[in-house]
Amino acid sequence: MNSPIRVTVWGENHHENSERDREGMAERYPDGMHGAIAAGLTTVLGDGVTVRTATQDQPEHGLTAEVLDNTDVLTWWGHATHGAVDDAVVERVHQRVLGGMGILILHSGHFSKIFKRLMGTTCSLQWRNSADTELVWNVSPAHPIAQGVPHPIVIDEQEMYGEFFDIPEPDELVFISTFTGGEVFRSGCTWRRGKGKVFYFSPGDQEYPVYHHPDIQRVLANAVQWAQPEPAPDFVPPQVVNEAPPKFSGRYIGEGAQS
Amino acid sequence: MNSPIRVTVWGENHHENSERDREGMAERYPDGMHGAIAAGLTTVLGDGVTVRTATQDQPEHGLTAEVLDNTDVLTWWGHATHGAVDDAVVERVHQRVLGGMGILILHSGHFSKIFKRLMGTTCSLQWRNSADTELVWNVSPAHPIAQGVPHPIVIDEQEMYGEFFDIPEPDELVFISTFTGGEVFRSGCTWRRGKGKVFYFSPGDQEYPVYHHPDIQRVLANAVQWAQPEPAPDFVPPQVVNEAPPKFSGRYIGEGAQS
Amino acid sequence: MNSPIRVTVWGENHHENSERDREGMAERYPDGMHGAIAAGLTTVLGDGVTVRTATQDQPEHGLTAEVLDNTDVLTWWGHATHGAVDDAVVERVHQRVLGGMGILILHSGHFSKIFKRLMGTTCSLQWRNSADTELVWNVSPAHPIAQGVPHPIVIDEQEMYGEFFDIPEPDELVFISTFTGGEVFRSGCTWRRGKGKVFYFSPGDQEYPVYHHPDIQRVLANAVQWAQPEPAPDFVPPQVVNEAPPKFSGRYIGEGAQS
Amino acid sequence: MNSPIRVTVWGENHHENSERDREGMAERYPDGMHGAIAAGLTTVLGDGVTVRTATQDQPEHGLTAEVLDNTDVLTWWGHATHGAVDDAVVERVHQRVLGGMGILILHSGHFSKIFKRLMGTTCSLQWRNSADTELVWNVSPAHPIAQGVPHPIVIDEQEMYGEFFDIPEPDELVFISTFTGGEVFRSGCTWRRGKGKVFYFSPGDQEYPVYHHPDIQRVLANAVQWAQPEPAPDFVPPQVVNEAPPKFSGRYIGEGAQS
Repeated sequence: MNSPIRVTVWGENHHENSERDREGMAERYPDGMHGAIAAGLTTVLGDGVTVRTATQDQPEHGLTAEVLDNTDVLTWWGHATHGAVDDAVVERVHQRVLGGMGILILHSGHFSKIFKRLMGTTCSLQWRNSADTELVWNVSPAHPIAQGVPHPIVIDEQEMYGEFFDIPEPDELVFISTFTGGEVFRSGCTWRRGKGKVFYFSPGDQEYPVYHHPDIQRVLANAVQWAQPEPAPDFVPPQVVNEAPPKFSGRYIGEGAQS
Repeated sequence: MNSPIRVTVWGENHHENSERDREGMAERYPDGMHGAIAAGLTTVLGDGVTVRTATQDQPEHGLTAEVLDNTDVLTWWGHATHGAVDDAVVERVHQRVLGGMGILILHSGHFSKIFKRLMGTTCSLQWRNSADTELVWNVSPAHPIAQGVPHPIVIDEQEMYGEFFDIPEPDELVFISTFTGGEVFRSGCTWRRGKGKVFYFSPGDQEYPVYHHPDIQRVLANAVQWAQPEPAPDFVPPQVVNEAPPKFSGRYIGEGAQS
Repeated sequence: MNSPIRVTVWGENHHENSERDREGMAERYPDGMHGAIAAGLTTVLGDGVTVRTATQDQPEHGLTAEVLDNTDVLTWWGHATHGAVDDAVVERVHQRVLGGMGILILHSGHFSKIFKRLMGTTCSLQWRNSADTELVWNVSPAHPIAQGVPHPIVIDEQEMYGEFFDIPEPDELVFISTFTGGEVFRSGCTWRRGKGKVFYFSPGDQEYPVYHHPDIQRVLANAVQWAQPEPAPDFVPPQVVNEAPPKFSGRYIGEGAQS
Repeated sequence: MNSPIRVTVWGENHHENSERDREGMAERYPDGMHGAIAAGLTTVLGDGVTVRTATQDQPEHGLTAEVLDNTDVLTWWGHATHGAVDDAVVERVHQRVLGGMGILILHSGHFSKIFKRLMGTTCSLQWRNSADTELVWNVSPAHPIAQGVPHPIVIDEQEMYGEFFDIPEPDELVFISTFTGGEVFRSGCTWRRGKGKVFYFSPGDQEYPVYHHPDIQRVLANAVQWAQPEPAPDFVPPQVVNEAPPKFSGRYIGEGAQS
C-alpha cells in the first residue's frame, strides 16, 4: 500500500481578513479558501492524502525548510499580495520544485512570483469580473487529471480569464474554458520543470464559491495524484557534474569506427 | 527575389454539383469553394503565389504526379465523398508531404483519408449546424499564421465544431474557437510530418460564405507562406540508410574514453 | 489493491523458426524473444502483472477480439515479416489503442504497419549491424519510465539505429542513445493517440541478448505501468458526436454579453 | 526587399582580457569571440544583416535601451562572469525578448541569468574538457535552422557538454550531439517565450576555434533568420487586459443555446 501523499495547501489569506472582503469571505469560505481546498482534497482522496495548510501571514509564510521537506505536492493560491512574498521563500519553493515536489498553481496565482519564475514569461491574461458562466472542456480525455468529471464541467458563476495567456506552450493542454462573453482560456495546463511537475488550473476566485464545487475538487485531487514525485525522490535539483567518461564492460565508443 | 509559391487548391466539388446543394452553392460560391479559396490566396499574396485548382471529379482527382511535382503547398477541402478518394492518390500525396510539400487541411477535411493517415487518430469531433457565431482566438500571437488578423476573428455564422477533437497533441496550437452554444474547438493547429508541414484550420463550411471573409483569407495566405518548403527541397521522403560510420578529420569517437 | 495489468507480448516468431537464424536464436532466446520479454516483465512486476504471449503464426496472429478485450498493454516486436501482418488485425489493434490500450513498439517494430499507422510518417532510420556498444541516456529524469536504471544504461553489443528517425516530434523524449560509431538515436519516445499511450523503445535485436539485460527489463516494466489505461477505460475510440448544446443551471453563455 | 536583420552580438569579453587566457585567445580569436561570431554572420548573410557587438565591460554592458530598441536578434555568450551582469540589464533584455526580440544563447551561456530566467530551471549539465570530437546530428531535417549543413556537423575538438541538461522540454529539438566519450547532449533547442523566439546552441568554447567553423557559422546565421520577429513587431510584452466582451455583428454568443 502506498504512503499517503503529503500535501501543503498554501493560501494568501488576505481577502479572508481584509475589511473589504471579510464578510463575504466568511460566508463563502468560513475556513478560508485554503481551508476549503484542503477539505476538498481530503473529501476526495481520504486516506490517500495528508493535508496541512500554510498561509502568507505565518513566519516564513508557513513554508519553512522543515515544512517543504515533508511536502510532496504544494498548492498555491495568491492574489492581492504577491509582491509581499519573500524572495527567499520563493527561491526555496523553486528549488524544491526543481528537485521533484509537485506544484499546483491556482487561479490568480498566475501572477505569483513562483509561477512567473517557473514559466519565464509575463503570465499576463485578459480578465473581466461579471459573473460569467464558465464551461471547462476536456481536450485530453485519457489524461489522469481529467478523470471522473463531466464534459464540460459547468461553473455557474466565475470571473472570466481570457486569452492571450502569456505562458510557454504547455507540455500538455488538459482543459480549455469558455465564458458567457464568448472568451476562451487554456484553463488546465501541465509542464515539467527540473524533476518537478507543474499544473496550472484557473477556476477558483475569492468572490465565487468555486472550491466547494465537487468537479473542481475532483480535478484538484486528480492533479495532486498526478503531481506527486515518482518513487524515491531525492528533492535535489539537477546539478552540474564534471566527471570522467563512463567505463564500459563492452567496447569503447569509437572502436567500431576505427576498424 | 523569391520565386512565387506554387499552390494547388484541391476541392471535392461535390456540393457545387449535387442536386440538393447546387442552387445555394451557386449563390455563395459561384466559382466553387476551391475557386473562392484560390481567389482569396491571390488577393492577399498577389505575385507571391501562383495558384491552380484541382477537383475530385478530374482524372486522378487532378493530382497527377506532374501536378504534385509542381506544388509547394496543397490545400484540401472535402466532405461528402471522402470514401471515394482513390487510395493511390492518397498515397502519392502522403509521400509528397513527407518529402516536404506543405498541406493545409480545411474544415470537414478533418475526416479525409490523407488527414487521418497523417495524424494516426480517428480525427472525430463534435458538431452542430445551427448558424452559431464563431470567435477565433489567437493563442500564439507571434506565430506567422496569426499575423494581421483581429483577436478574435468574428465569423457571424458558421457550423459548430467542438471538442473532443481526436488529434495528436499539436506541435503548435495557434487558434482556439468558441461558439454561440458555448463549445470550444482547437481550430488552428500545426504539425510536422517527415519534411512537410501540416496546418489544420476549421473555419469554412459549404453552407456559409466563410471563404470570402477577409480575415479567413488572410489566415490561409499566411499559412501557405508558413507551410512552403525550406529552400531547395528534394521532396524525397526520409528513407532507410545503412552506411558505414562517418570518417572524421579529428579524433575518432572513443579515443578520449580509452586514454 | 490494484488489479494486475493485463499484458500481451506479441512476437513475430520468425527468426526463432527460420533456417538461417534458428540455431543462434535457440541459444540466445530459448523461449523466443516474446518469451524473454514476457519473463522479464514477470520478474520485475511479479503480481502486478499477468502476461500472455501471442505470435504472428497463430490464427489472427493471436490477436483475436477476445484477446484484445483482455489486454491493457500490448508489446510489439516484428522485423522480417511486417508485410504479412493482416490489415484487419492491424485495424483492430489500431482501434483498441485509440480506445485506451497502451502499446509498446520495440526495436525493428519501427517499421510495423501498426507503428507507421499511429505515426503517419515513414518511420525510417539509419542502421548498421556491427556489434556497437549502445549507451542509453536519460533526458527526463523524473519520468516514470526512467526510474531505477543507471545513467547511462550500457548495452555491450547491439545493432546501431541512428538519426534521422522519421517520427513525429515525440510528446516526451525519455532516452537518447549513442553508439560506438558516434551515431545518435532518440531511443525512448512517448506519444498519445486517441485515449491510448504509445512508447517506442529501440534497444532489442534478434542477434543480441538484449532482452535479458536487467536494465532493459526494468524499462519495459516501467513502460507497461506507464502505458496502462487510466481507471475505468471504455476502450471505445473517440467518435463523432452531434448533439444539442449543454444546458446549464446558471446563466446561458451569451447572456452577459447582451446586457 | 526585406530590411536587413539588426543583430547585436553580445560577448562577455573576459577571457579575451584575462591574464590567464589572453595569449591563447589572441591567437584563436584576435577580434574576440564576439568579433568572430559577428564576422561569421556577415560572411553568411551579407546585406541581409547589420551586425553590431556589445560587451559586458561597456556601460550598461553595451545593452542600453537605445541599443535594444534597434535590435531584432541578440546573441549571448558568457561564461566566467555571469554573476556580475546587472539585474537591471537582465530585466531589460527579458522584457524585450517577451516583446518579440529573438535571442540566441550560446554554449556556456546556459548558465547566464537571462537564460535561467527564460527557462525557469537550473540549466545545469554535465561537462568535461578533454578535446573531444563533437558530432552534431540533425533530428529535424526540414527545420530552417538546419539547412545547408552536413549530417553530422563534425567539430574536431570541443569541450563535452552532456545530459542531463536541465531545461524545459524544447518546443523543437533540432540538433543532438555526441562526443568522443560517448556522451550525448541536446545541442540545438528552440522555445517561444512571450512573442520572442529563443534558440540554444551549445557548440562554441573559448578554448577551441569553433566560431570559425563554416558549418557553425551557417547554423548561427540560419538561427538569426529564424529568430527575427514577425513583420511589424511592437516589442511590447504581453500585458493584462481588462475589457468588455467583444461586440459582434452577428448573433451574440449564447443566443443559440437559449432557443
